Amino acid sequence: DGGGVESLDYEVIENFAYREEQAQRGKLYVSYLLVVKWFFALLIGICTGLAAVFINIAVENFAGWKFSATFDIIQKSYIAGFVVYVLFNLALVYSSVYIITQFAPAAAGSGIPEIKGYLNGVDTPGILLFRTLVGKIFGSIGSVGGGLALGKEGPLVHTGACIASLLGQGGSTKYHINSRWFQVFRSDRDRRDLVTCGCAAGVAAAFRAPVGGVLFALEEVTSWWRSQLMWRVFFTSAVVAVVVRAAMGWCKSGKCGHFGSGGFIIWDISEYLFSSFPFLTDFGFSGQEDYSFAELFPMAIIGVIGGLLGALFNQLTLYITTWRRNHLHMKGNKVKIIEACLVSILTSVISFGLPLLRKCTPCPESDPASGIECPRPPGMYGNYVNFYCSKDNEYNDLATIFFNTQDDAIRNLFSAKTINEYSSQSLLTFLVMFYALAVVTFGTAVPAGQFVPGIMIGSTYGRLVGMFVVKYYRKLNIEEGTYALLGAASFLGGSMRMTVSLCVIMVEISNNLKFLPLIMLVLLISKAVGDAFNEGIYEEQAQLRGIPLLESRPKYEMRNMTAKEACGSGRVVSFPRVVKVSDVVSILRSNKHNGFPVIDHTRSGEPLVIGLVLRSHLLVILQSKVDFQHSPLPSDSRGGARSIRHDSGEFAKPVSSKGICIEDIHLSSDDLEMYIDLAPFLNPSPYIVPEDMSLTKVYNLFRQLGLRHLFVVPRPSRVLGLITRKDLLIED
Amino acid sequence: DGGGVESLDYEVIENFAYREEQAQRGKLYVSYLLVVKWFFALLIGICTGLAAVFINIAVENFAGWKFSATFDIIQKSYIAGFVVYVLFNLALVYSSVYIITQFAPAAAGSGIPEIKGYLNGVDTPGILLFRTLVGKIFGSIGSVGGGLALGKEGPLVHTGACIASLLGQGGSTKYHINSRWFQVFRSDRDRRDLVTCGCAAGVAAAFRAPVGGVLFALEEVTSWWRSQLMWRVFFTSAVVAVVVRAAMGWCKSGKCGHFGSGGFIIWDISEYLFSSFPFLTDFGFSGQEDYSFAELFPMAIIGVIGGLLGALFNQLTLYITTWRRNHLHMKGNKVKIIEACLVSILTSVISFGLPLLRKCTPCPESDPASGIECPRPPGMYGNYVNFYCSKDNEYNDLATIFFNTQDDAIRNLFSAKTINEYSSQSLLTFLVMFYALAVVTFGTAVPAGQFVPGIMIGSTYGRLVGMFVVKYYRKLNIEEGTYALLGAASFLGGSMRMTVSLCVIMVEISNNLKFLPLIMLVLLISKAVGDAFNEGIYEEQAQLRGIPLLESRPKYEMRNMTAKEACGSGRVVSFPRVVKVSDVVSILRSNKHNGFPVIDHTRSGEPLVIGLVLRSHLLVILQSKVDFQHSPLPSDSRGGARSIRHDSGEFAKPVSSKGICIEDIHLSSDDLEMYIDLAPFLNPSPYIVPEDMSLTKVYNLFRQLGLRHLFVVPRPSRVLGLITRKDLLIED
Ligand SMILES: Nc1ncnc2c1ncn2[C@@H]1O[C@H](COP(=O)(O)OP(=O)(O)OP(=O)(O)O)[C@@H](O)[C@H]1O
Ligand SMILES: Nc1ncnc2c1ncn2[C@@H]1O[C@H](COP(=O)(O)OP(=O)(O)OP(=O)(O)O)[C@@H](O)[C@H]1O
Ligand SMILES: [Mg+2]
Ligand SMILES: [Mg+2]
Repeated sequence: DGGGVESLDYEVIENFAYREEQAQRGKLYVSYLLVVKWFFALLIGICTGLAAVFINIAVENFAGWKFSATFDIIQKSYIAGFVVYVLFNLALVYSSVYIITQFAPAAAGSGIPEIKGYLNGVDTPGILLFRTLVGKIFGSIGSVGGGLALGKEGPLVHTGACIASLLGQGGSTKYHINSRWFQVFRSDRDRRDLVTCGCAAGVAAAFRAPVGGVLFALEEVTSWWRSQLMWRVFFTSAVVAVVVRAAMGWCKSGKCGHFGSGGFIIWDISEYLFSSFPFLTDFGFSGQEDYSFAELFPMAIIGVIGGLLGALFNQLTLYITTWRRNHLHMKGNKVKIIEACLVSILTSVISFGLPLLRKCTPCPESDPASGIECPRPPGMYGNYVNFYCSKDNEYNDLATIFFNTQDDAIRNLFSAKTINEYSSQSLLTFLVMFYALAVVTFGTAVPAGQFVPGIMIGSTYGRLVGMFVVKYYRKLNIEEGTYALLGAASFLGGSMRMTVSLCVIMVEISNNLKFLPLIMLVLLISKAVGDAFNEGIYEEQAQLRGIPLLESRPKYEMRNMTAKEACGSGRVVSFPRVVKVSDVVSILRSNKHNGFPVIDHTRSGEPLVIGLVLRSHLLVILQSKVDFQHSPLPSDSRGGARSIRHDSGEFAKPVSSKGICIEDIHLSSDDLEMYIDLAPFLNPSPYIVPEDMSLTKVYNLFRQLGLRHLFVVPRPSRVLGLITRKDLLIED
Repeated sequence: DGGGVESLDYEVIENFAYREEQAQRGKLYVSYLLVVKWFFALLIGICTGLAAVFINIAVENFAGWKFSATFDIIQKSYIAGFVVYVLFNLALVYSSVYIITQFAPAAAGSGIPEIKGYLNGVDTPGILLFRTLVGKIFGSIGSVGGGLALGKEGPLVHTGACIASLLGQGGSTKYHINSRWFQVFRSDRDRRDLVTCGCAAGVAAAFRAPVGGVLFALEEVTSWWRSQLMWRVFFTSAVVAVVVRAAMGWCKSGKCGHFGSGGFIIWDISEYLFSSFPFLTDFGFSGQEDYSFAELFPMAIIGVIGGLLGALFNQLTLYITTWRRNHLHMKGNKVKIIEACLVSILTSVISFGLPLLRKCTPCPESDPASGIECPRPPGMYGNYVNFYCSKDNEYNDLATIFFNTQDDAIRNLFSAKTINEYSSQSLLTFLVMFYALAVVTFGTAVPAGQFVPGIMIGSTYGRLVGMFVVKYYRKLNIEEGTYALLGAASFLGGSMRMTVSLCVIMVEISNNLKFLPLIMLVLLISKAVGDAFNEGIYEEQAQLRGIPLLESRPKYEMRNMTAKEACGSGRVVSFPRVVKVSDVVSILRSNKHNGFPVIDHTRSGEPLVIGLVLRSHLLVILQSKVDFQHSPLPSDSRGGARSIRHDSGEFAKPVSSKGICIEDIHLSSDDLEMYIDLAPFLNPSPYIVPEDMSLTKVYNLFRQLGLRHLFVVPRPSRVLGLITRKDLLIED
């Protein structure tokens, strides 16, 4: 388990090289750093916004061509139309899965568990590389354009994180643009902040929800939050919002092909809600406010359903992913490609075939005020799709939600003023089939988000409940669309277990603050119900992929354990201060530990722990060989001459790579007889805990400070001083 | 300095009593705790919402009576009207300052610095008492109703915090309702969470901005944020929003006197903007979107002005408050009362007198679409006040903003479709006079918030800039009101230096997400400009009041200091494990330290640090006397029989009180000859740092974990084990 997953070094290693660099840098450098950080926040925002716009335009155009071609052909032959439809989807999905399997395996899935892991302190190989970024962008265009039951929002979060990390290191590791200039961000610690910005930018771009983006990064993804960071993250999100808005304004003039004319992207829901819930604008939103108390009951039921279906979804996807991993995907890339293609064909068949079996419904009397035509004009996107109907003024309600892009289907489900558009039979069919499709699609080797499928599933049963409420209460101002929105919130809550950020995202999507208490009620219930069964989908998936997340709260059992008990009984592998090269090699070969205490002796011969040396630093030293010395005596550590041989950038591991491996290092027998003085390279003061501290406290220390190693030491024999608040109040 | 300010014990003291209680509590207790916590979140929300509604209704009714009486009388005589106006204000302000000085001195000011201090780990005496709550509520009714240049929003945050803390301890310390049931919240740690909820609730109530409330608590007030808390805080804010909305709906039917008919509270701005910016609703907000790039320049200027005026405000108030404290307020309560009364009279004279000097302006041609009448009908609240005008269809623009409640003035300043309502001369006069009044009023002994005065000042110069823009660019869709909003944001940003939360609050107030980038731009600039001069107003005031806040970021100088250097060279005062009572008393008398290491000896005679004992715990032990023993030998610490004498509640200090003092304890000479075994009462594993750890790292540890004491110990001689991520991944 955990193959290849390694922790990140968030702790500042205060070795000689670091100290010297710090000493050289004046206060001016601090200001320079600040400016650079803000500049990067801006850059991340712009790039992520553009990436989101690009993905959206591409997806819409592909889907637009597909549907207009299909609709053209079915005028003559349904069979030919079906074939074209299937082939179109297949081609898109094939291109997606091909890119992923051949080129960017780390880009499969949503990427959120991996990013969450990264910000929690574990690095999954390949997750932030340039190829992953490319694979993610083009892969999700293929998979979403190809009509699979998955979304592009999760991948956008990953995209944002990749962009941030790549900008931070000045482009791909292969093609460094200007490594000097970007050395600011060489430590894992600085990258963490950039990736946080990128995450928030991704959400902001996906939902056009800047506040939701910040809160998503804050609640769901990051593990260490600093209030200085907040403002910068918010700035990035706002930049994204401006970029996306500007791009959409530009597209309105028709320069983006099918994009803009139909405009079936999820982030249009807000404007759509405005035009389709006319009461929102006409009555200053007041139409929605007077929900009766009796309505709270069906809303609570929606919450319960969401919790149950969400937990079930997590469980089913967990089983299927486990099974896939153990039986299918190990057989190689061909199997992955075939699998994705089969899923694509299945999806096409169901979404085309099921509406064929459905009888058409006569159009309702048209209401010019609502502006909704029935059937919708050909080539346009909207409600009331005429599909396989015998008469012209009929529509196929199943096709309206099934034979459509997901964004358009969501809009149709959310739409108000269309009471009784869907029969409960159609909604039920759709719910069951789409739920099954979403479960099966999850885990195929394509970029896949769970937001959109979740919203589809949730809004379907939400609308079903809404239909019953409308029937039962017979009140005019109840809108099925509101229930669909609540249903969507409930399913996402039941599956992802996010709370504040989800709530704010839903509010920003619906652009109506008055739904806030309702959404919150539904989320409270669905999260509580879901938590009774299993963990959230991101946690489950992280666990499955061997990403060891540290939760923010220590486990209950830790109260009764001590630090000594936790770290096991194995002998501690340590180094003396001056060590023979051959010893270093053999010790590093003999174990897989990543940090080692360094023990020196005082003049009187007593042992003394002088610090911690990291495996990765030792490997750099072994590789460069410049620090080898002939004498087994410590070189004078005061004269900093030695340490200038390295700057701290040399010790920085490039992002998402394994770094050097002990097997890669080849030393001559002469080299092996030399010595290394470790003093300049070690972290002189790692954090320590006494052996009988309770594990709860140890956990808090480890988690809050984002550590990688912690020394367990005997109880001290003396206290040299106490630090209190007063001692830390130093004036500038 | 820092007289009476003491740190809070956020660390869990894992002594015998605590461990035994933990052992008795099963998993069921954990669920019970969770339910109780949510119940309290609900309760805090309801109570804070009701308090806010009460304050608002009271303020509006007092102000309503005042203005209608004055307007009635000035029909006959301006002099009589003036006298009534002054007396009315004086009576209200007098009642406020009387309550504060005689009854609740801790309720003066805004209370935000103190609450910020509390959540940072320092307790200011009296800040969370019941009398403070009462004083705050009634005091701010008096001071705001009395027309002083201060607001009720800051005090509402304090009110929310008080409510939370009092609910958490089951009412006032004097009248415990059910101490058993509420024992859940006896530790400082639990109270901290409640107070955080209360804070967010206060902001949510003040601005009807639930998301802004959460972000305010997160960004500005709390120092330790846990993601588990976030959802609960958000829930509280939402409850507040529901309560306030319900109460306002109830008031619409006219049951609340002047409230509801005039409705001149700040949180009406959103609805007001909707009705006064008709284009917002008619064109789906699009009117505001096409600000030209050229407009960004005057907006940036607004940001700069905000930064300058805000920093100046902080500096002036700092001088005046210091002067007041050193020369005025030390002379006793009478001086405070006289001072407040003088300020009240000054305010009344200026706000009544200045408009008299101003020539009236003829009404513009009425525009029935905007729904704004000129002059406004008598007794109503609105634009175009007819005051001391010779003709009927004239209005006095200075009176429109000056001789009015602040909420109404803000609304008039923000109002759109009223281009050229104010002359630049009037705005300038108002700006100068009101700025001066706000500076002078700050620091009088009444509850006082800075939000509303800040918004008034900011929107005045914002509108001034807007007038020039309108004149210069001659475009129709530029609204002076938008500039006023940006001005308000800029002044608050320049003074308070909040960012994300302020931005969200402004968006929630204006109910228009499209202003977000503009507000952000303005805030970025004003904060940067302000930071060049001094610190934010809350930090300045906290420093002045001796509240030692620990910032989240270590100081730059700390890189070059070690732990040992920081804690000074004084001998460490420590206790042996078994100590004579007389020694305890004399040691406690001899110094003011709050924590002491306890040193025992191993069998072989080596010293060993066995823990930390708190002064407050020692005092409890001395007072109760049950733990005194005759023998100087350790009692068997295994048999827990001893410790049952205390439960952990006994050691908990009541909120905002000094606790026991060594001088209060009287012991007989027999008692003094006895011994105490400290082992059951100490914290067996305080956090430790090696002596040469850099102070930056020490600071991070101290700050992130919210510690009060930290032992500086010699470098360890051995490492018993290493804790890594793997060791902390224990499955349930
Ligand atoms: N130098 C060491 N000597 C002895 N035991 C060690 C040493 N370093 C780590 N360990 C122990 O070995 C186990 C595995 O440690 P390992 O170094 O593989 O860390 P890890 O949990 O995989 O984290 P990382 O992600 O840093 O590799 C842990 O239980 C730890 O207590
Ligand atoms: N037991 C002790 N022996 C020696 N010095 C101590 C001891 N406790 C604290 N000090 C030192 O005395 C100084 C003041 O400590 P004090 O106990 O007054 O804490 P403080 O900063 O006021 O915090 P608090 O708010 O807890 O009172 C600090 O610099 C600290 O290093
Ligand atoms: Mg490992
Ligand atoms: Mg003190």
